[in-house]
Amino acid sequence: MTRGRLPCYFRAAMSEPSSDPNPSTRGQHWLVEYLGCDRKVLDDRQELVSLLWRAAEAAGAKVVAEAIQPFSPHGMSAVLLIEESHFSLHTWPEAGYAAADFYTCGDCQPERAHAVLLAGVGAARSELIVIERGLGGGGPSLAVGEPRRG
Amino acid sequence: MTRGRLPCYFRAAMSEPSSDPNPSTRGQHWLVEYLGCDRKVLDDRQELVSLLWRAAEAAGAKVVAEAIQPFSPHGMSAVLLIEESHFSLHTWPEAGYAAADFYTCGDCQPERAHAVLLAGVGAARSELIVIERGLGGGGPSLAVGEPRRG
Repeated sequence: MTRGRLPCYFRAAMSEPSSDPNPSTRGQHWLVEYLGCDRKVLDDRQELVSLLWRAAEAAGAKVVAEAIQPFSPHGMSAVLLIEESHFSLHTWPEAGYAAADFYTCGDCQPERAHAVLLAGVGAARSELIVIERGLGGGGPSLAVGEPRRG
Repeated sequence: MTRGRLPCYFRAAMSEPSSDPNPSTRGQHWLVEYLGCDRKVLDDRQELVSLLWRAAEAAGAKVVAEAIQPFSPHGMSAVLLIEESHFSLHTWPEAGYAAADFYTCGDCQPERAHAVLLAGVGAARSELIVIERGLGGGGPSLAVGEPRRG
């Protein structure tokens, strides 16, 4: 099993020489809050897992493993391990709230995963932050973007 | 199965009345970069999974599910679903680098999980950021702390 359709370290080796000694570890970690969601959907295990898989497909990620845990009386936690890192989703149906993260390396498009989830859980609004992480360029390993609300 | 030793929403209901309408969704999400790690450890599936479980125990979290994926030729991804959300670890042994997140609600102590991982992977240094997330207080759902390096 490799990371990405081409493993990230092979992707790095095949690309043009760069001053970045470890481009393969670079990734984007999106933390997203979904607010005012459809409470029924947030408690529907089958629908939520299906949504996460569709989000992964939309982002161009390849799922390699999953873990799912329903809670009593409400809610669910689910994680997909993808070749490019992971997607997670935790739901609180009683509050109409869900917390997701999309952590990808390589050429994935986490914004597409976000669009699938936003529509799928029927969120009235969302908040998100994108964190760039991984080695490269001699700078810090974590770079934090501005929170976005909408 | 519940979230936390007491489910978070029961914890909220049992505590003193508060102006916070949804304290149960509040959590801390730690994103941690481990740099200059012991490369042998980062490729040792058994040791890494054991480390994650010890980290969860140290933090006071209860593991309810796990997903693990080794990569070829190097590295591993692992996620523990805990009653309080999730812990994840992705390793790049060839770069001496590992990326972790500790997302907990309730009374967990993610700083203890970080201490276990920091020592366990033999990191020369780490970078981390703590993001407070969840509903409460009428403010934004995401609050981003200052990155810490050490």
